[in-house]
Amino acid sequence: MKKLEKITPQSENFARWYTDVIQNGDLMAYGSTKGSIIFKPLSFGIWDNIRLNLDKKFKSVGVQNVNLPLLIPESLLQKEKDHLQGFNPELATVTEVGGKKLAEKYYIRPTSETLFGEFFKNEINSYNDLPLIYNQWVNVLRWEKTTNPFLRTREFLWQEGHTIHSSEEEAKLLTTKMLNIYKEFVSDYLAIPVMDGQKTEHEKFSGADFTFTIEAMMKDGKALQAGTSHYLGQNFAKPFDISFKNKENKLEYAYGTSWGVSTRLLGALIMTHGDDRGIIIPPKIAPTQVDIIELFANKDQRVHEVASQIKSDLLLKGYEVKLDDSDKGAGFKAANSEIHGTPLRIEVGPRDLNENQVLLVRRDTLEKVYCPLGNVVETVEKLLVDIQNNLFNEAKKRLLSNIVSISTYDEFKKAIDEGKWVYAPFDGDGEDEKKIKEETGASTRCIPFVKPLEIENDTCFFTNRKTKRLVIFAKSY
Amino acid sequence: MKKLEKITPQSENFARWYTDVIQNGDLMAYGSTKGSIIFKPLSFGIWDNIRLNLDKKFKSVGVQNVNLPLLIPESLLQKEKDHLQGFNPELATVTEVGGKKLAEKYYIRPTSETLFGEFFKNEINSYNDLPLIYNQWVNVLRWEKTTNPFLRTREFLWQEGHTIHSSEEEAKLLTTKMLNIYKEFVSDYLAIPVMDGQKTEHEKFSGADFTFTIEAMMKDGKALQAGTSHYLGQNFAKPFDISFKNKENKLEYAYGTSWGVSTRLLGALIMTHGDDRGIIIPPKIAPTQVDIIELFANKDQRVHEVASQIKSDLLLKGYEVKLDDSDKGAGFKAANSEIHGTPLRIEVGPRDLNENQVLLVRRDTLEKVYCPLGNVVETVEKLLVDIQNNLFNEAKKRLLSNIVSISTYDEFKKAIDEGKWVYAPFDGDGEDEKKIKEETGASTRCIPFVKPLEIENDTCFFTNRKTKRLVIFAKSY
Repeated sequence: MKKLEKITPQSENFARWYTDVIQNGDLMAYGSTKGSIIFKPLSFGIWDNIRLNLDKKFKSVGVQNVNLPLLIPESLLQKEKDHLQGFNPELATVTEVGGKKLAEKYYIRPTSETLFGEFFKNEINSYNDLPLIYNQWVNVLRWEKTTNPFLRTREFLWQEGHTIHSSEEEAKLLTTKMLNIYKEFVSDYLAIPVMDGQKTEHEKFSGADFTFTIEAMMKDGKALQAGTSHYLGQNFAKPFDISFKNKENKLEYAYGTSWGVSTRLLGALIMTHGDDRGIIIPPKIAPTQVDIIELFANKDQRVHEVASQIKSDLLLKGYEVKLDDSDKGAGFKAANSEIHGTPLRIEVGPRDLNENQVLLVRRDTLEKVYCPLGNVVETVEKLLVDIQNNLFNEAKKRLLSNIVSISTYDEFKKAIDEGKWVYAPFDGDGEDEKKIKEETGASTRCIPFVKPLEIENDTCFFTNRKTKRLVIFAKSY
Repeated sequence: MKKLEKITPQSENFARWYTDVIQNGDLMAYGSTKGSIIFKPLSFGIWDNIRLNLDKKFKSVGVQNVNLPLLIPESLLQKEKDHLQGFNPELATVTEVGGKKLAEKYYIRPTSETLFGEFFKNEINSYNDLPLIYNQWVNVLRWEKTTNPFLRTREFLWQEGHTIHSSEEEAKLLTTKMLNIYKEFVSDYLAIPVMDGQKTEHEKFSGADFTFTIEAMMKDGKALQAGTSHYLGQNFAKPFDISFKNKENKLEYAYGTSWGVSTRLLGALIMTHGDDRGIIIPPKIAPTQVDIIELFANKDQRVHEVASQIKSDLLLKGYEVKLDDSDKGAGFKAANSEIHGTPLRIEVGPRDLNENQVLLVRRDTLEKVYCPLGNVVETVEKLLVDIQNNLFNEAKKRLLSNIVSISTYDEFKKAIDEGKWVYAPFDGDGEDEKKIKEETGASTRCIPFVKPLEIENDTCFFTNRKTKRLVIFAKSY
C-alpha cells in the first residue's frame, strides 16, 4: 500500500489535479512504452462495467459481437484514400518478424473500417443477408505526439461498431440510434450530461459522409468528445466492393455506418465528477459501491461483528462491497475510500454502536447520515440512487450554465478565454475553423440537435454573413 | 444466408471435416492477413461465455483484472534471455510510424511476463503489498509458420494471469490452484475431460521453473494442450528487480507465476464433441441453447402461437433461445440448427400439435423426445443437463480407453501410429524427446498427477534404464 500524497486543488492547477488523482486513486501506472498506460484493477473494473452494461444495450438492438485481426496489410488500407490520409502519420507499422524483413508491411489497426470492408464483401449476396450489425471490443493504436492518461494514449481500448444496410435510410437511422444509445448510457450510467449533434465537415471522421457526436463538459470547462457515430454512405462499399442483389435483382453497393466509444470515457468520468479529495465514481458503474470501515475494532468486538453483518446483507442485495478490517487509523481509512471514489462509505465504531447506529458518508456531498442498525440496507439503497442522480444533476447544471452566446469575434475570444462554450451562428469553412483554432484554441464541437440556448442573432461572428447554422465552439481534450 | 455445403465425414478425413464444420457452422472467416481469422458471432459468443464464467471463478480466488500495453520495447524483452530465446523467431516487430523509422523497435507481445515484470517492480515495497494476483484478457501475436483456425493462429485471444508472492510455497500453491480452476472449468463448462500433469524440462515454458498443463484428447486421438500454469520462481524477479522487504526487513526477490488459456479452447471444443453433422456446443457454454423451429406455420396459425409461447417461457427461465419462423423448409431448418451445434431443438408442427405435443431433438444423440405441451420447460431443463453430462461422459470414456501402456519402442511406434496416447516409463532427456518426435511425431504431453493406468513395468522404453517417471506421449495439435 502506498502512502497517500497531497492532491493539487482543482482551482490551483486542473491538469496537475488530474495527474494527482489518477495516480493516488490507483487508476493507472505509466507503461514501458512512451504514451502507453497500465489500467490498474480500479480503472479496468470501471471499463469492464462499461463494457458489460453498454453491451446489453447493444444486444437489445440486435448488435452481434465479432473479433477481427489486429493487423491491416498495407494494400488493404490503400483502398480508401481519404481514410488512409486521415490516419497515415499515426500508423505503427510492422516491417519485420524475428529480425527478417517482411514482403508486405502491416499496420496496427487505428480503427477497422478497412478490415470490416474486406470481411463484409464475402458475407453478403442479396438484400436478404442485410443488415449486418457487428461490433468488437478491442485495442487500437494511434501514434499520438502528445498523450494524456485515459484521454489520449497511443494504445486505447474501445468498441467499434460496423454495420452494412440495404438502404441509405436504414443506415442513417442506425447512425442516429447508436448515438442515442451512447447518450442514454453516458447519462444514465456515467452521470455525464452531453450535447449531441453533428460535426462540421472539417471535424468529421475521415471517410464518413457525416459524423454525429456527444460532447461532454469537464470541470475546467473544456469539451471532451465522448462518443461518435458515423454514416459512411457507400464510401467503403465501393472500394471494397461490398455489393448485394437488391429487390429488383440489381447489384447495389451497401450503405455503412461505424460508431465507437473508448477508454476516454474514464477520463470524462474523472474530470466530470472528481473533487479535491479524489475521483468520484457514479454508483451504477462503480466496481466498489460501498466501503465499510471498522473503527477501533480491537477495543470492541461488536465492531467487526456488525461490519461483517452489514457486508453480507449488502452483498446479498447484489451490491459491490469492500470491508476494511485492517488496523490502520480512521483518518487513513476514510481518505483511502474517498481517493478511490467509492460513492458511499459506512463507518462502524463503538461510539455509534452504543447508540445502535452507524455512520454513512456520501462521497459526492460529503454529507454524514447516521443510520439505525436495522435500517442500513434501505438507507444504502436510497443514498446510492440519490448520489447517482445528484452527480448527473450537478454536472447538467454546470453544462447548461457554461454555454454562452456571443455576437462578435472579440466576445468569442473573451468567452473562450474564460473557459466557456460558445454557441453562435457560424458559416465558416474548414480554413476558418483552423484559423479560429490557432487564434483562440477553440474548435467546433458540434451543431447541436437541440438548442442549448435561444439565439436571435443570425450573423456569423467570423464571416459576418447571414446563417442559420448554430455551432458550439470550445477548447477540448 | 449461405447454402449448407456437404461436410466431409470424420472417418474419411478429420482435418477436412474440421475445416468444413468451422466454415459451414459460421464460426470463422479467414482474415486479410495470412494466418489470421475473424471470429464470427457464434465463435465469439462462445469465447465471451468462456470469459464470463472463467472470470467468475478467477474472482472467487481473488484475481483482479488489469490491462497492460500491446507493445514491448526491445530493451525490455532482452532482460530475460531464456524467455527471449523462446519467442524470438515469432516476434512481429514495429520499426516505423507513418513511414519514419523509430529509434527503438517494439515487439507485439507474444505474452506479457516482461511487461508485468516492469509493472510489478514499482508496485511493491514490503511483504504487506503481496501477493499481487492479476490477469488480463487480451490479444497476443506469435508469427507461426503453419496455422490452423482456432488451434494455431498468428494472433489469438487469451487470458494471461501474472502473480507475485512473498514465498516460494505460496507461489507454488497458486500455480496448482489455477491449474485446478482450469481443469474444473474445462470439465464442467466445456465438457472436456483432461489429463493434468507436469511438462518435462524440454516442453516447459521458456523462463519457468516448471509448467503444469491440462491435456485434452481430440476425436482423432491427438492431444491438445488446453491450459498451462507456470511457476516462474525468481526468474523474472531478478532481472526486473521485483523485490520487497520481508518480515526480517531484508530485501528479497518475489516469487512469480503465470497461467493462461486461449481461443484454442474453441478448437478443443469442436474436435471433442463435433460429429458428421457439424459442431456440438455444450449447453452451459452455448450462445444459443435451444432452437425453436416452426413447421408449416403458413398452414396452421397455432404453430407460431405455440412456438412464440415456448420461446417466451424459456427466455423467462433464463435460457438462450432462437426462434426460426422463416418460411424455409423443415429439412433446411433442422440441418441449420444441427450444423451450428445448438444443443437442443424444438420442432413445432401441426401434426404434433393435434396430439398436444412438440418434438424435442437432442443434438448429441439425435434422440427424438415427444413432449406434452404443458411440460416443455421442465423437459428442456432436464435434457440440457443430460446433454451436458453425456458429452462429458462420452469424451471421458474415449479418453480413458485410448491411453495404453507399452514396453518397447516398437510397441510405442505402433500405438502412436494407431492414434493412441502412450503412458510409459521414460527417463530420456530433451535430445531423446526430439529424436522420438522426429521418428514418430509424438511428443511428451505430461507427467500426469493421477495415473490413468496401473503400470508395473519400470524400464524406460527408450533408454532401457530403470525409472519411476511415468510420462504420456501423443501426437498433438
